[in-house]
Amino acid sequence: MQKGQLIFIGLGLYDETDLSVKAIQEIKTCDFVYAEFYTSSLMGTTKDRIEHIIGKPIQLLSREETENNENILKRAENEAVAFLVGGDPMTATTHLDLRLSAIKRGIPTRIIHSSSIVTAVPGLLGLQNYKFGRTTTLAYPEKNYFPVSPYHIIKENKERGLHTLVLLDIQAEKKRYMTANEGLQLLLQMEQKVEEKIINDTTVACVVARAGSKNPFLRADTIKSLQSIDFGPPLHTIVIPGNLHFMELEALVTIAGLPNKIAETMQKP
Amino acid sequence: MQKGQLIFIGLGLYDETDLSVKAIQEIKTCDFVYAEFYTSSLMGTTKDRIEHIIGKPIQLLSREETENNENILKRAENEAVAFLVGGDPMTATTHLDLRLSAIKRGIPTRIIHSSSIVTAVPGLLGLQNYKFGRTTTLAYPEKNYFPVSPYHIIKENKERGLHTLVLLDIQAEKKRYMTANEGLQLLLQMEQKVEEKIINDTTVACVVARAGSKNPFLRADTIKSLQSIDFGPPLHTIVIPGNLHFMELEALVTIAGLPNKIAETMQKP
Repeated sequence: MQKGQLIFIGLGLYDETDLSVKAIQEIKTCDFVYAEFYTSSLMGTTKDRIEHIIGKPIQLLSREETENNENILKRAENEAVAFLVGGDPMTATTHLDLRLSAIKRGIPTRIIHSSSIVTAVPGLLGLQNYKFGRTTTLAYPEKNYFPVSPYHIIKENKERGLHTLVLLDIQAEKKRYMTANEGLQLLLQMEQKVEEKIINDTTVACVVARAGSKNPFLRADTIKSLQSIDFGPPLHTIVIPGNLHFMELEALVTIAGLPNKIAETMQKP
Repeated sequence: MQKGQLIFIGLGLYDETDLSVKAIQEIKTCDFVYAEFYTSSLMGTTKDRIEHIIGKPIQLLSREETENNENILKRAENEAVAFLVGGDPMTATTHLDLRLSAIKRGIPTRIIHSSSIVTAVPGLLGLQNYKFGRTTTLAYPEKNYFPVSPYHIIKENKERGLHTLVLLDIQAEKKRYMTANEGLQLLLQMEQKVEEKIINDTTVACVVARAGSKNPFLRADTIKSLQSIDFGPPLHTIVIPGNLHFMELEALVTIAGLPNKIAETMQKP
């Protein structure tokens, strides 16, 4: 085995059993295991349970420790290091930055892939992946900070008949996970700000809660109706559908409880 | 455990070790295991090796047997049935059709997610997932059949500065897998047909071969240069990049061998 190396390993969607056999085999060959849970969080497990299934201790890294990656790189120069992240690795710029820094130092890197919200949510809802446009993320607004770019991305996709996957802010350090209700409220606020008539409370949206769990909660309805629903524990994800193929529409009715009355109005002639 | 049920289980990207612990646990509780390998193929394994790791025999289904799904449904009414597919399940309309038919008969269905080319390829290349537009697929042309929709999707994405994931045709029954070279040639032919000046042999493209394997082959270069490369065994995937964030550009140079001379011309001022 090479002396030093850095292996980015995806933990998948929800709990420790989403780890692949390959991921566990790779981790067993590693001398040291880091993990960061702030760019993506596995809600169905704990650090202890992941350590139990991989049979090794994990050093959990904060945002700062991940971004100031000198210690990780120093170690990876001489040891086989595993870097665990939720979902499929390399979605966060920080991971790419770490990988490029490693390569520049001559440290071999590899990626072990895993399940991701990006394909799981369309699959759960019965929406076709190739009909999705650009993905967007809703961030918690802050004083003098209320980005409306997600609104424009939804508009751009809708104009092309494409669905939009809307990921919701994760502030793991604060144990703060944006709910679908908060996300839908933000979209309505963006409408009030931008006023291009893309979203109102009769707009149909889809919500998926706890993708990857044994019983994910799915619901498609008007934003007004969705806002009154308690979707339960995080993570939540929103999809704003574009034009629906008849089978996709049937899926939203059959799988996500879209009321027939609304489905009829969405049926293409 | 419920009497009858149908569980869609993703096999992941490349070999039998891409199966998750959860997938194997679920399969062990099932009475019968079907698989179809024609919508997506795992090139790094065999039916025997998958049967070995799951500890159960698999009945492999042809396209016809999957589409005429009466037998699968009949069985799932009374037994716990696993339906294995490559990648993350539900990407093919056939799978959705099967799931909806099952639900209509009152058969409980679930999905066990896995790794997918849709997030793996961007991650391997160091391209940001949220900067991808709509995904497209290149099909082998046939007599009087040469669809140019992929060309229009690439154009639409490029106009918005977005990357395009270009999946390549799989004709598993014929053991025919489109190579990146064939795919790039088709794109140039579409340009000759549509003439909207989106693609020529100096256009930069990225090729990923054998995503999910231990040593995937990555290369970013002009289409002309890429066409002279032998990317080896399938599966191959193409990405046509849009505007590149500086770190994405650095990644294509560092990870995918994009010549610096070309990278400089792509650097945003």
